[in-house]
This record gives sequence, C-alpha cells and structure tokens, in this order.
Amino acid sequence: MRAVNILRRKRDGHALDGSEIDAFVQGVASGEWPEYQAAALLMAIVLRGMNAEETAHLTRAMVESGSRLAWADIPGPKVDKHSTGGVGDKTSLVLAPLAAACGCIVPMMSGRGLGHTGGTLDKLEAIPGFRVELAKEQMWSVLKKAGCAIVGQTRDVAPADKILYALRDVTATVESIPLITASILSKKIAEGIDALVMDVKCGHGAFMKTHADARALAEAIVTTGRNSGVRTQALITAMDAPIGRTVGNTLEIREVIDTLRGNGPSDLETLTVELTARMVWLGGLAPSLEEAVAKVRAALASGRGLERFRTMVECQGGDPRILDDLSQLPQAPQQLVVRAERSGFVADVHAEYVGLATMLLGAGRDRVGDAVDHAVGVRILAKPGEAVAEGDALYEVHYRSEARLADAILLLRKAWRLGEVKPAEAPLVLESIS
Amino acid sequence: MRAVNILRRKRDGHALDGSEIDAFVQGVASGEWPEYQAAALLMAIVLRGMNAEETAHLTRAMVESGSRLAWADIPGPKVDKHSTGGVGDKTSLVLAPLAAACGCIVPMMSGRGLGHTGGTLDKLEAIPGFRVELAKEQMWSVLKKAGCAIVGQTRDVAPADKILYALRDVTATVESIPLITASILSKKIAEGIDALVMDVKCGHGAFMKTHADARALAEAIVTTGRNSGVRTQALITAMDAPIGRTVGNTLEIREVIDTLRGNGPSDLETLTVELTARMVWLGGLAPSLEEAVAKVRAALASGRGLERFRTMVECQGGDPRILDDLSQLPQAPQQLVVRAERSGFVADVHAEYVGLATMLLGAGRDRVGDAVDHAVGVRILAKPGEAVAEGDALYEVHYRSEARLADAILLLRKAWRLGEVKPAEAPLVLESIS
Repeated sequence: MRAVNILRRKRDGHALDGSEIDAFVQGVASGEWPEYQAAALLMAIVLRGMNAEETAHLTRAMVESGSRLAWADIPGPKVDKHSTGGVGDKTSLVLAPLAAACGCIVPMMSGRGLGHTGGTLDKLEAIPGFRVELAKEQMWSVLKKAGCAIVGQTRDVAPADKILYALRDVTATVESIPLITASILSKKIAEGIDALVMDVKCGHGAFMKTHADARALAEAIVTTGRNSGVRTQALITAMDAPIGRTVGNTLEIREVIDTLRGNGPSDLETLTVELTARMVWLGGLAPSLEEAVAKVRAALASGRGLERFRTMVECQGGDPRILDDLSQLPQAPQQLVVRAERSGFVADVHAEYVGLATMLLGAGRDRVGDAVDHAVGVRILAKPGEAVAEGDALYEVHYRSEARLADAILLLRKAWRLGEVKPAEAPLVLESIS
Repeated sequence: MRAVNILRRKRDGHALDGSEIDAFVQGVASGEWPEYQAAALLMAIVLRGMNAEETAHLTRAMVESGSRLAWADIPGPKVDKHSTGGVGDKTSLVLAPLAAACGCIVPMMSGRGLGHTGGTLDKLEAIPGFRVELAKEQMWSVLKKAGCAIVGQTRDVAPADKILYALRDVTATVESIPLITASILSKKIAEGIDALVMDVKCGHGAFMKTHADARALAEAIVTTGRNSGVRTQALITAMDAPIGRTVGNTLEIREVIDTLRGNGPSDLETLTVELTARMVWLGGLAPSLEEAVAKVRAALASGRGLERFRTMVECQGGDPRILDDLSQLPQAPQQLVVRAERSGFVADVHAEYVGLATMLLGAGRDRVGDAVDHAVGVRILAKPGEAVAEGDALYEVHYRSEARLADAILLLRKAWRLGEVKPAEAPLVLESIS
C-alpha cells in the first residue's frame, strides 16, 4: 500500500479503511513512513476530519504499536481518569487514592507539565524520594498494595503516538478532535483499564476555549472509548480560574494532603468527588451515581483516602513523613505578598496567566526536558467571588531568584480582575457526557 | 517568524502575507524548514487554496530563490511557450525556430519526460551530438545566432521549486492550481522572458482531465503571469489523441523536420501555428493575431523556420546532416505493424495508453534518472476520424527488445477504439484565455 495513495484519499475527503490506517501507524512506528508523509497526512486529517470508525481504528492501531498492560491477577475494576490539562489541577493526586479506597484499581500513567499547565509527575516528585519511573512488576506491586499507582509512561506505550505527538507539535496539527482523541485514548487503553472518566477542561485556561469545542471532544472520546471496549464518561468542567488555591509543585502537594484530610478548598473537593464518583459507578462499585458519591464522601471523611495516598507514597519510594510534617517538603527561600490596590469583588483569576507566572518562577517548563523547581509557586489568597479591601493579600509568591520575578508579578496582576458587585457563582461542572 | 505559526494560519484558511511566503520559500531553499513542515504547509495549501496575490508572491519568491537570466543585449522580444505536457507533443521543437524566424528570442528551458508524457530534451538528444546542458554564455551565443535555444534547467533556476516539486510528488500535493502555477511560472520567469504563451492540455491524456480544471489553471497562470510582469495568454487544447502521428524521440524529430518542411500532420501544424502566432503577437511583432498568423505561415512556407532549427542544432553541437538525411538518426532494429481486426472509423486513439506503451518500449521513463532509448517508438497510421478496413495498419511499432513488447501492443490495442460512423471532427483549440 503506497503512502501517497493513502494521503491522496484523505486529501480528497474519503474515509480511510482499517488497512490504510494500519499502514500509516505501523509505517510511522517503524520509521518506514518518512516524517514528511506523516506530516502531510496529519494536516489532511486536521482539515478533512475522521469519522467515528476511523478514529476508533486509529486509536486501536496506536495501542497496538506498543504493549498493553494487564492486571487480571489484581481483583477489582481497573479505572482511570484523564484531564485535558489545567492550572492548579491536582485532582488526580486526590482522586487516585480516593478511588482506590472505594475499591477501584487505578493504574495511572501520567505526564509532565509543559507551558502554562502543570504535570502530575512533577508534583509527585516534590515529595522527597518519590519515583515515577517504575518497571511493570514494580507498578504491579504498588497497585496490589495501594490500589493506585501514578507513574510515567513507559517507552513501549503507544510508541506511534509519541512520534505523532512530537510531529503534530511542530506542524500545526495539534487541533484535531480525532487526533487528540486517539492520542489520549491510546495511552489510557494501554494501561489495561476497563473504564475511564474524562475531565474535559473548558475556558480561558484550557486547551478548549469554548463549550462547543469541549463538547465535541468529550463526545468523540466517549464514543471512541466505548467503540474500543472501555466504558467511558466525560465531564466538561470550568478552567477559567485555577483549581484550588495553589499553583506550583510543593504547594499543590500540601493542598492535596489538606484535601485528603477534609480541609481542602471546596472547588477542588467538589471536582474530585464528582470525578471519583463516576469512576466508582463506572467500575460497578455502586449501583447509582448518588450512591457512588456517598461512598466517595465516606472514604474521604474516614481518612481512608489519605491512607491509600500514604501507602502509594511509601510504595513508590517517597518519604511518608511529609504526610505528618509538611515542613519536610521543599520550601522556597523567599516569599512576597502581592496586595490589592483597591477594593471590590474578585471577578476573575485568569488561569493561563497564573500558570505562566508560575512557570516564570521556575515551577513549570517552557521546553520538554527543562528541569523544574519543586519549591516555588503561587498561593491564591483571593478567589473569584471573594471580597477584598485595598491592601488585602491577593497572592503569596514563593520564589527562589529575582530573575523573572517582576514579569511573574506583572502576569499575576494581569490575571486578577476586580468587579464592583459580587459575581454570580460560576458552576464548576458544566456538563456530563455519557 | 515561526514556521508553525505560518502553518497554523494557512490551516485556518487565512491568506499568507508576503513575509510569511518568503519565510517558507527561503526556509525550504536554505534547508532551515524541515521537510515535514514544508509538507504540512503544502497539504494545507492544497486544501485551503491561495488567492491571486499569494500565488503571485509565491511565484516571485521561487524565482528569487535562484538566479534570473537576462538577455538585454540581444535585441527582440523574449518570448516562450510552455505546455502542461502531452503525448506526441513535439510542438516546442517546431515552434521555437518558427518564432525565432519571426523575430522572437526564445530562451526555452525545458524538461525530460516522465510517465506517459515525453520530454523535449529527450527528443533533442535523439540528434547525435546535441547538447542540452549549456552554460549561460553558451546559451547566449546560441540565442544570438539562432534566435532560439532549448536547454535543460540550470541548478540555479528556482531551486526552491525543485525541492518543493520533489516533495509534492511524494505527499499527494501535486494537484493544486496555485502550486502548479507558481511552479511553472517561476521557472519560465527565471528565463528572463517578456511574454509567455501557455498551452494547457485538456483530455484523457492530460494532467487536467476536464475543461473546467484546465480553464481554472489557464486563468490562474494568465493572472499570475501578468501580476508578475510577464504578458501571458493561454490556449486550452485537446489532449485526447497524441499530437501528430509519432510518439518516441527519433520518430518525433523526423516529424518535426517534416513539419518545418511543410509536410507535417495537420493537427501538429495547426497547433504550432496557433501557439507561435500568439508568441509573435504578444512579443509586439504583429499588430493583430491575424497578421501574426500570416507572418508565422510565411516563415513556415519560406523554410526560414527550418533554417533556424538547423542553426540551433549546429550551435548546440548537433549533427546538422540529419536535416538532409534522416537515416543519420538512431533507428530501432525491429519493426512490426499492428493491424485492425475489423473495419470502421477510428473514434479514439487514447493518448495516455499510447504514451504508456511507448514508455514500455523504452522511449520514456518510469523514474527520474532512467535512461531512454531514442530509437524506439510508435507511428500512428490511423488517426481519429479516419476509416480503416480489416487488416489495415494501425500502428508501426519500432522496438529493440521483446521484453515488454506484448504489454505495449496490448496497450496500443486498448488505446484504439472503432466506431460505426465517422466521428465529428473534434476541435484542437478548445478555448483561448487572455
């Protein structure tokens, strides 16, 4: 099958058949397809689209380009959650142990932060000793003991996706619902899961800026997940302001522990409970969503979620003393407080700007491979809807060097918008797609 | 200017501005743009199109990626003709000396054959000693003496086009009117011409199968040529049956000489006169098309066209004795005649099949760089509209080896279609675009 004929068919708006998609994915994985042919096909897919059948086949072919984990010898439904990426979104870290406490097995492979969004693995590495690169047998043993493990992707998970993902980034072919769907799902399916809850972020701090775009992606993921044999539901959730009150690796780990202790910010707790309950429900561990919510709330209240987190940290080499003494976490040498210059109600804390400010402080990375500073970050002291008086603290900035501090503060001030009247409370969960 | 931003703009349907097009073309020429980015942009251009201004800018940028010839010190208008490629189309070889005999200077850079269409340079190389690779000074001296020179493209003519042309071939991005237009015109403009007549072939032996497609290309070329400061007109001409009665290098050279002697097949003569007259008219050497036609016919009848051809052959190192003794041309060792199996009127001689048959005999090439056999080819003894009786000769096949002879004969039989009644005479010139 000649590559150029496959390109021609997609260029002309035809649906590709299974053998054509296989030839593409295998050609990319083996290196037989040169990058220029893959890039041209990606652009044709962006502009011509793919139907549900093509998307499911592409997903399957990407899974099959590598190996797929299996956990048959660990009892319990294998369930995961994935988010399209937000600012201050530490939900996974609360949710995985909470779902495990409810009986789910959560074999989560996660990623590192890039640009204005943080990465779950970077946050975990703020815990001294925590290891995210585990061999399959090690992951098995963490799952067996803790019920959840959060690790980096191994090389053999969807290798075709890795190549295509890098190529899409430099060829303006990221923005394609079938390509995004296949990329996300192939990596999740390779984890060996039975069910998946997808958190599609929507808003000015998210990849999907509009509700319509978020819905299109959520629907494609739900359809494709099901067509691939994975029970899948999606929530569309707001990503205008950061989730919780912290952005930055150590600060977020502190907030995760606070939340697992029942003292978390309400938006983070609500979002986590909503997502975890769907995992429990889809996993068949509760007969209805309402009962799943109750089960999750009970696990949270009883401290069983926190205990699972402790077990996971221990099993993955992390120092469990941090759970009892947060001062064992890395701390930034310097702090300053950014204050309100006038009074009013917080109308907006623009997530993307806060994310970029935190990146400037060193908590995130500009390019793949950059090191991150786990200690630095921002604590948000005035969230949307809250009243502030002139001189009140808006942000607590944890920093190490003054090099880009001024730019970070400028961004934080830009992120913050004040109104005359108390804004209506914005919903966190915008829609449920099932 | 980041490549990915330029890709994104074209992907989203925007017109690129001059600096973006320059960045693309210069990036391709210098190698700074990796092939995958160029390929993705090409696919976006195929699917999103380019407006007249973008096409003109692309053309200009491709010209400027290399050097542009200039012939200011040779008096007379510099005029050329270009065709989109046909079977048995030896028009250039008759037209260049004829236009020169009428006062045009024809600095023609031509190409080699590929697939079912023949190449002007291959035909000329059937003449013993003829050299098509000339330095600029040598080309200057041929033009000065003969008024016309037919040479291969030098390396420094539109180098960006060479790279993009090769890339388009393997990424299914050939079929794009702006890309075809810029590719053709950049090479012609680099010849240093004032005026251009374009022969857009239309029919089942041509790249453009429908009149609508041919018209769209002709209009784009005329508009872009003018926007680039070159007076441009186009004819849309039929390419259903081969032009003339010969396909194959030596056989075509014989037919060229016959035509310059006034004994050519009527379709070839008509097409040549129509095209040459427009060159003479556009070159300002006749006040109307009618007078230009008369001037061209006079040059043909007087033998002045043939004399220019002789001068060009001599100047380019060819053996001029072939003009007086055609047996000095290479001859195929074997001949056979394909005969009609029943009687009727020839309805069709399918140009593409005849072209492919000739390629199988060795006269053309499958891949760039293959050698061609100048002696082999096909003489068409029954053209559309002619009556044949059972047993009459249809084709005279000139061949060297029997290796692919059977396949060639099969194609020739497939090319030939018989009707019960004499078909209406099909027009050769379908439309004139100016």
